[in-house]
Amino acid sequence: MRILGLDPSLSSTGWGVIEVEHNRLKYVADGYIKTDTKADLPSRLAVIFQTLKDVISTYEPDEAAIEKVFLNENPASTIKLGMARGVVIMVPALFGLPVTEYEPTKVKKALVGVGRAEKSQVETMVKVLLPGCKPKNNDSSDALAMAIAHFNYRRAF
Amino acid sequence: MRILGLDPSLSSTGWGVIEVEHNRLKYVADGYIKTDTKADLPSRLAVIFQTLKDVISTYEPDEAAIEKVFLNENPASTIKLGMARGVVIMVPALFGLPVTEYEPTKVKKALVGVGRAEKSQVETMVKVLLPGCKPKNNDSSDALAMAIAHFNYRRAF
Repeated sequence: MRILGLDPSLSSTGWGVIEVEHNRLKYVADGYIKTDTKADLPSRLAVIFQTLKDVISTYEPDEAAIEKVFLNENPASTIKLGMARGVVIMVPALFGLPVTEYEPTKVKKALVGVGRAEKSQVETMVKVLLPGCKPKNNDSSDALAMAIAHFNYRRAF
Repeated sequence: MRILGLDPSLSSTGWGVIEVEHNRLKYVADGYIKTDTKADLPSRLAVIFQTLKDVISTYEPDEAAIEKVFLNENPASTIKLGMARGVVIMVPALFGLPVTEYEPTKVKKALVGVGRAEKSQVETMVKVLLPGCKPKNNDSSDALAMAIAHFNYRRAF
């Protein structure tokens, strides 16, 4: 089974695919979708949409996991993140994938054992749990962490 | 030339298409995209996406106009609206349509002459400006108003 982890944002949406085989994890692919800050909003969202569609078509994940809403102090930032998140959470549904949302603290807890872990600790654990994987950047590392967390919580059911 | 007006929300996104011929307006179609409040968020957004895609394929508008962000006091509502809005504003871009955003007050001003007009005044003007049109509901009436406002501001350039 393959899991797609997603870390949405308007400027750089992280994605990561892992494979679960006999309860063992394997790295498949990761990346981030950068959008041109000078382009208009609809075009930037369209880039996120098209790229994410290509990622799902290429790696054919069975389930998706995404970070739960991060409410920014600034309402304008909240709505921007909301718009990117709306597109990102919708694309897996178009392919019929179930999408599960996780609080950022739950993801950290699944990987590092504490909900308030540092970003660098999460990245270290991603590399430990997915041997040979060198995440492309912070966003794709967070996305891989999301996928790993989904695997852990899934097993717990 | 055809203009698509859009009034996005997660539960009911309004849409309306008008035609401009020799600087005169004609009603083409309107409707609203209702989503099942019991369905999960990704599926609801996917319904908005698919229906709006069908609307654009069917009526082939040349340009789109959408209400500018309405910042709710409640951050959870703001992010929900943001998600629906992200999908709604992205679909016209997939078809290569330019999308213009308007403040709600500018739309009211274009139709009624004042920025703080009542909803019922806007609907009355929609019916006056588009003879024979009976908007399906408030949301589609607001979407038609958006399309009319876009026509007015476009002429002003």
